[in-house]
Formats: sequence, structure tokens, C-alpha cells
Amino acid sequence: MSGTKRSGTRAQALRREAASRRSPRLPISLDALDGHLGYFIRRLQVWVFQDFIRTLAAVDISPAQFSVLVVTGDNRGLSQAELAATLGIERARLARLLHRLQDRGAIQRLQASDDGRRHALQLTPQGHTLLARARALAARHEKKLVERLGAERHGQLLQMLRDF
Amino acid sequence: MSGTKRSGTRAQALRREAASRRSPRLPISLDALDGHLGYFIRRLQVWVFQDFIRTLAAVDISPAQFSVLVVTGDNRGLSQAELAATLGIERARLARLLHRLQDRGAIQRLQASDDGRRHALQLTPQGHTLLARARALAARHEKKLVERLGAERHGQLLQMLRDF
Repeated sequence: MSGTKRSGTRAQALRREAASRRSPRLPISLDALDGHLGYFIRRLQVWVFQDFIRTLAAVDISPAQFSVLVVTGDNRGLSQAELAATLGIERARLARLLHRLQDRGAIQRLQASDDGRRHALQLTPQGHTLLARARALAARHEKKLVERLGAERHGQLLQMLRDF
Repeated sequence: MSGTKRSGTRAQALRREAASRRSPRLPISLDALDGHLGYFIRRLQVWVFQDFIRTLAAVDISPAQFSVLVVTGDNRGLSQAELAATLGIERARLARLLHRLQDRGAIQRLQASDDGRRHALQLTPQGHTLLARARALAARHEKKLVERLGAERHGQLLQMLRDF
């Protein structure tokens, strides 16, 4: 981080130029945020989620709901605790997500699964239909993201973030 | 995305193994989320923001407040609209952020800046002191993130995301 320094490398100059294109009035310095990865992750994440929500508007599925549907569909009989741990979602938040998906008739809880765990989760037939539609739209969203980032950078980011 | 397929590459097997370590009951498939960058960006972003908030608890500064303080400190006399455009924050949300920082005596609005723009923003002397403390703690947070990701991956991610 270079503080209030105005001079700098060519890369910094280019970034200032990019910042000034977004806001034509003056070259606004973002230099001091340059070392902070979280700032840039957040900007990308906001863009991605906004596009996801827009692209999946026809099925009204949020990114978090999508991940719940996908993982439940691929892992029948998961418990709520396992699903929360797998997705890294707080249990109270997952409970709200599941409640909404149950209200829509997409997910049901079994009284007991084969190995005796209670409240095991599975998709209903309507849930499978909804997930199929959501998957098709999510693929369209991902295609836009690939176009925006470039295929190479998209692949590199996936590889770098997957094992975090 | 490979749907419910259980076999696959060694990389997929390793990821299933990692997933099963997080939740010991069974190898939970995340394969279907593998192609979705947004899912992995979100997981990293949540980790980063939680650590940021924890590390800056002593100054009670959120990631968004930090970016507002940093950019205002480095670009005296910005208008609210310019700040919103630079940071990619919705104007209503920025208004709330600024309100809170004004209540804390960290930011003030000038009636008119040198070039006649109204409500230009600047840090107060207390704001500069607060920002200095926040910067020191934010550097500590970033150090933890570098340790977690590895310096090489941290640098690569910064470079790839900075120009998004």
C-alpha cells in the first residue's frame, strides 16, 4: 500500500486511468486499497451475485438456495448439520433457506434416513424439476462470467480458489 | 459440472476427501458446484470479511467503512457520487455508511470545495487518527490472509482481480 503517493508504476497509472474512466471528474486514487485482496474479491463477488440473481430471476433462486439445491440433489439423505458444514453456512441461516425451499415444495425432510439419521434432506420431484431449470440458467450466468473475465482467467481463478 | 457422477479425476477425488474431512460422516459431493466460480469467490470473501471484522474489532470498522475512510483520506474533496462510483457502492448504502462515520466524528462534509462542488467529503483530524489505527490492523489482517493463501497465490489473485 502506497498511501497518498501519486506517482508510481505504470500499472498504478493504468489503474488510476481505469478509476477515472468510471468517474470522469478526476483521477481518483485507489492505491491505498491495492494491497487489500478482500476489496477486490468483494467487488467481483457483488458483480457475480447480481448477475446470478438477474439471470435466475425466472426461477427466483438465490446463489445460496442454488448451492443448497445442488448439494442436496447430489447427496440424498444429508443431515442439516452436514449440509451446513459442507457449504460453510451458519446453521440458523441454513434453516431459513431450507424453510423457504420447503415452502416452495422443492425440498422435504425424511423422518429418518436409511442409517437412522433424523431429518435427512432430499429433493422432491418438483425440486428436481426446479433444479434442472436453475442449472440451465446458472450455466448461462457462468458463460457471461467467462466472457467477462476471459476463459483463461476464469479457469485460473477456479483452480486457485477451489481448495481454499 | 459432472452432476451425480461419483468417479472422476484424481483432483475430484482429493476434493471429495477434503469435503469429507470437513464433515466426517460421508464423502459429500461438491462436484456440481465445481464449475461455478461464484460459489468459491463467496466462500473466500466470507472468510476474509470475518477475519477483517475480527481483526479490526478494536476500532469497530467494517470492510466497507475502511474503504470509505481510505479513499476519502487519499482523495480530499470527493463528492458522495464520485465516492459511490469509485467504490461501486449503491448511493443509499454509502449514505448510511457516511452517516455512521460522521456520527463518529471521522468524516465531515464541506459546504463547497475549491472547485465549487457541494458536500465534498474529507476526514477530520480524528478521522485521520482512526484511519491510521485501522490501517495498522488491516495490515495485520492482510498478513493472515497471505499466510492462509500463500504469498504467491495472494499476489496472483490480487493481480487477476485488480482490473476486473
